[in-house]
Amino acid sequence: MAWEKMKEIHSRESVLFYDTDCGGVVSNIAYLRYVERARCDLFAALGMPLSEMESSGLFPAVYRSEIDYLVPGKLGDALRISARLADVGKVRIECEYEIHRENMEGDLQLLARSKQVVVLLKLPSSRPQRTPEEWRG
Amino acid sequence: MAWEKMKEIHSRESVLFYDTDCGGVVSNIAYLRYVERARCDLFAALGMPLSEMESSGLFPAVYRSEIDYLVPGKLGDALRISARLADVGKVRIECEYEIHRENMEGDLQLLARSKQVVVLLKLPSSRPQRTPEEWRG
Amino acid sequence: MAWEKMKEIHSRESVLFYDTDCGGVVSNIAYLRYVERARCDLFAALGMPLSEMESSGLFPAVYRSEIDYLVPGKLGDALRISARLADVGKVRIECEYEIHRENMEGDLQLLARSKQVVVLLKLPSSRPQRTPEEWRG
Amino acid sequence: MAWEKMKEIHSRESVLFYDTDCGGVVSNIAYLRYVERARCDLFAALGMPLSEMESSGLFPAVYRSEIDYLVPGKLGDALRISARLADVGKVRIECEYEIHRENMEGDLQLLARSKQVVVLLKLPSSRPQRTPEEWRG
Repeated sequence: MAWEKMKEIHSRESVLFYDTDCGGVVSNIAYLRYVERARCDLFAALGMPLSEMESSGLFPAVYRSEIDYLVPGKLGDALRISARLADVGKVRIECEYEIHRENMEGDLQLLARSKQVVVLLKLPSSRPQRTPEEWRG
Repeated sequence: MAWEKMKEIHSRESVLFYDTDCGGVVSNIAYLRYVERARCDLFAALGMPLSEMESSGLFPAVYRSEIDYLVPGKLGDALRISARLADVGKVRIECEYEIHRENMEGDLQLLARSKQVVVLLKLPSSRPQRTPEEWRG
Repeated sequence: MAWEKMKEIHSRESVLFYDTDCGGVVSNIAYLRYVERARCDLFAALGMPLSEMESSGLFPAVYRSEIDYLVPGKLGDALRISARLADVGKVRIECEYEIHRENMEGDLQLLARSKQVVVLLKLPSSRPQRTPEEWRG
Repeated sequence: MAWEKMKEIHSRESVLFYDTDCGGVVSNIAYLRYVERARCDLFAALGMPLSEMESSGLFPAVYRSEIDYLVPGKLGDALRISARLADVGKVRIECEYEIHRENMEGDLQLLARSKQVVVLLKLPSSRPQRTPEEWRG
């Protein structure tokens, strides 16, 4: 896989009512939904689309999440979420995300940054699997 | 089962930030979460607690939901959700819910009303099951 | 507004992990999120985009939701949600939705159907507003 | 406030269908909901109940979240979430959480650990406020 060629994946979201709370801004919980979509897009690009996980029994499980909330998102914001493999060990995969607001002119403002540690699990045993060699440095 | 003796179940919720949206009120989607907790409490009272569903493979699946939103809930509201079996056929179970706000004096104000049609499914086939005789009329 | 010309709006979603539950299928609650995106797309097409609601103070509030769950959605499904104005009165707006799964060949399978009653509210009073004449039959 | 006397707050949750995903376990996103309830309980114990936030205009905003997922939660689990002030600066508040599963005998198993950085904001300016002296070490 020519992963070097497509190191970063971009997903898009628009902020809906259910993403916001009565503080008038995007709920801190909603960012993890944005990150999940970006993570799924990332692993799909790596050859593991959601639609094949049931048959393969292999799926990425999140072991750790961290998010820094920098600027509050607002209803109707157009978001652009970037995702990339930051570090891939034999089992442990570190993913990095940036959530930007994109205005009409295409200018980006960074709203939040996230990192996750992901491990490939094989069902039904849920045993951790080795990462593919071609994902590593 | 002396179901007649406990015809109605009451659950409690408090409205958190993630239940509200930037309109300043409880999101229309959050009411379905309140209803789900009440439905789970109802079926637990009927002898089907969540903690046994994995081993029994028997669980109530929702075939239809309807909700009328009457008065908007607000952050911090203490809610009291009532749930009851409205009608039980051989396969089809109709549940009714009322979501009230309860003030310090215990006065209730009706915020929303909901109905669901539920069918008991048996995994892994997901085939509909007969309802227990003692739940009927 | 040439509303007749664009009577129906189509939105797209893909089923993510957070949309599913441990029954292995799309959670009954997730469908209301799909419907919300479709409703927002519909009102944007009618001239009320989310990004202008804060400044206009005018937004569509849901007074009633109903959903029929016909066929369970699955992780990774590509969904196509259609939304249309079914009936527009002086104040009351009835919206109809259909949620289809779309396969690789573009074939559609109906998973769920929904209806909502919506009323335009004007903040901060939250008073119901008259619907625009051109939306009515 | 005799905060020393009540250094740790405990909240309870039960794992519902909407908390789980098709991997058969609690979704990584659901833990942030548990943490939010615990945080709200913690600040209520500190004299800032949700029901007074609208009138006071003062509320705790999350600037950073981190979660370590140790053992997967399951449908029907009885959870006990502990929350405490780990460190309180002039503006920055660090909260720590532990999410345990509690069995029938009251034995606890640690499922997840979380930290959040919280800042008190005053609406409508959303300007950060000084923390109360009595919360500090």
